[in-house]
Amino acid sequence: MSENIMNLETVTMDEEAGALVIIDQTKLPDTVELLSLTRQADIWDAIYLLRVRGAPAIGVAAAIGIYLAAKDIETDDYESFYAQFKAAKDYLASARPTAVNLFWALDRMEKLVTDNADKSVAEIKTLLRDEAVKIKEEDIRVCRAMGEYGLTLIHDGDGILTHCNAGQLAAVKYGTALAPIHLGHERGYKFKVFTDETRPLLQGARLSAFELHSSGVDTTVICDNMASQVMKNGWVQAVFVGSDRVAANGDACNKIGTSALAILAKFYGIPFYVVAPTSSIDMNTPSGKDIPIEERPAEEVTQMWYKQRMAPEGVKVYNPAFDFADNELVTAIITEYGIARAPYNESLKEIFERKREESF
Amino acid sequence: MSENIMNLETVTMDEEAGALVIIDQTKLPDTVELLSLTRQADIWDAIYLLRVRGAPAIGVAAAIGIYLAAKDIETDDYESFYAQFKAAKDYLASARPTAVNLFWALDRMEKLVTDNADKSVAEIKTLLRDEAVKIKEEDIRVCRAMGEYGLTLIHDGDGILTHCNAGQLAAVKYGTALAPIHLGHERGYKFKVFTDETRPLLQGARLSAFELHSSGVDTTVICDNMASQVMKNGWVQAVFVGSDRVAANGDACNKIGTSALAILAKFYGIPFYVVAPTSSIDMNTPSGKDIPIEERPAEEVTQMWYKQRMAPEGVKVYNPAFDFADNELVTAIITEYGIARAPYNESLKEIFERKREESF
Repeated sequence: MSENIMNLETVTMDEEAGALVIIDQTKLPDTVELLSLTRQADIWDAIYLLRVRGAPAIGVAAAIGIYLAAKDIETDDYESFYAQFKAAKDYLASARPTAVNLFWALDRMEKLVTDNADKSVAEIKTLLRDEAVKIKEEDIRVCRAMGEYGLTLIHDGDGILTHCNAGQLAAVKYGTALAPIHLGHERGYKFKVFTDETRPLLQGARLSAFELHSSGVDTTVICDNMASQVMKNGWVQAVFVGSDRVAANGDACNKIGTSALAILAKFYGIPFYVVAPTSSIDMNTPSGKDIPIEERPAEEVTQMWYKQRMAPEGVKVYNPAFDFADNELVTAIITEYGIARAPYNESLKEIFERKREESF
Repeated sequence: MSENIMNLETVTMDEEAGALVIIDQTKLPDTVELLSLTRQADIWDAIYLLRVRGAPAIGVAAAIGIYLAAKDIETDDYESFYAQFKAAKDYLASARPTAVNLFWALDRMEKLVTDNADKSVAEIKTLLRDEAVKIKEEDIRVCRAMGEYGLTLIHDGDGILTHCNAGQLAAVKYGTALAPIHLGHERGYKFKVFTDETRPLLQGARLSAFELHSSGVDTTVICDNMASQVMKNGWVQAVFVGSDRVAANGDACNKIGTSALAILAKFYGIPFYVVAPTSSIDMNTPSGKDIPIEERPAEEVTQMWYKQRMAPEGVKVYNPAFDFADNELVTAIITEYGIARAPYNESLKEIFERKREESF
């Protein structure tokens, strides 16, 4: 079981079945179960319930999902098709508010529809299909490129701390924050990786530890509140996290707990790296304060993953899914077009200029 | 059920049964179960397994426990009695390494034995019984006094963040870090308390939230990694934590995660208060680096409280039970003899001078 996970793509399309195929991440690490989803409500649920999660993976799932919705629209009339497409898009977009890749992928798919209003609905459907596949294939190349850039910042034998899962399970292959580790591991680097368990949904313990440990990477699980002690022990040479949305000023929104890690890393003098493809960078969001932070159900905290009560009935709960690392705490942002450093308002603009010139 | 917990003493003695009586804290918040322990092995287990936990409560339990052991020693010969007493003491002292109250209480009981070597074994047993009761009664007065001092540092309406459980369940009554909140609540103050859930054993979610919520205090549970966001939101005016051992330089060892909170509080400009009776202050330990940090079983992290696996089989785990807040991050240390501020090497000495002059 554990050998196979890295050979699977986290998100893909089964064209014959007209299905989005995902690894059900809520079942890991116990069971590797592939879900084949054809109904839009099931795709929405899969995103909302984190069966598929991680900013890049959500983007790819949304692209495939909206193509599958479009494919089934029964009309030859463009206006009618577009109206139904928009409704399906708005529905999928409502599944989660924070990760910008969801909107990025859906907007990219919509642009294809409006750019090709002169074509037949059948032709547009084919274009949408190709675009969904392209978004998926791009994601693999983008993650690999970020892995290469990230590898230039670390050394054989380094201790690396990561939070949540920004690994292969958060993308199609390689992942974002874990891409340098996977690539380095393939090349014989011996990293010592510490994965915060990442309460409440334990993506670090369940997912990052699973994919790293399965790959043979030296992996140690810690509770979120142990990161400070691990840093104080001198065991961490770099922190790598992903991001659900990077604002134009470099504020990096990511799984709840990220801001604390950035503050701790600063305190201990450890570099704090954000690994984010340009699809996660939103130049229309000026700062972290402008990113909507999803609040999730109290039961995630009070009843744990396994639905066992561990806080008293009726007690209040605050359960934000994300927070952001202030740009002043971010040592560098690693993208598929290179490494951006402060001041981010300028360096991120340069990254997007490079993106306009090169293509992936 | 929930009304009664504050009327119970967390640790007490049933003289008729010759038993240490504790609330089994591993069963909370679901069940309030009193355990009546007579065997030394059961008392050791209760401390090791955290059925009774919290520095002051461990001290009281150890005092009662060693008295019960002494009571059953069948000899009239002092040397033989003392040898057996020492063996019983060493056994209880091995249950947990970090909280100094365990050793403080056992040493205090031993001193009584050696100071009264001229008395009969029967008389010494009576003295030990009285001392155990006195240690328990003192604990209540000490916690109340710390509550009064702590209350002078906060205001009606304040948001207060706490970690682990340094409440009534960690002592006999009132608690340490939560004493100001319980006392203030009795007087009509409206605090908004945030309790870190405190992985891996969830003392915050299970115990602090339980005792505060039962008492009618406005209580919100958060995961440990959410503290930074709660502080950033401006919801926290003070952090109150207990301590398992304060070193002579003011380094305050406490449940794992405390050092992170101290760093975050400093970053956000929030006062960070340690509430610790003098029985938790060890002037023989120069600094936090000299405090042994207990490492506990990996399964506490990988299998949760409820013994459900949530990290892959075979993955490594680092599970330190404590860390310490550097004295430079501690705004003040609140004791039963007043409030100490930096430089702690001097202010803590003054606290102990006051202790020699006044008695509790």
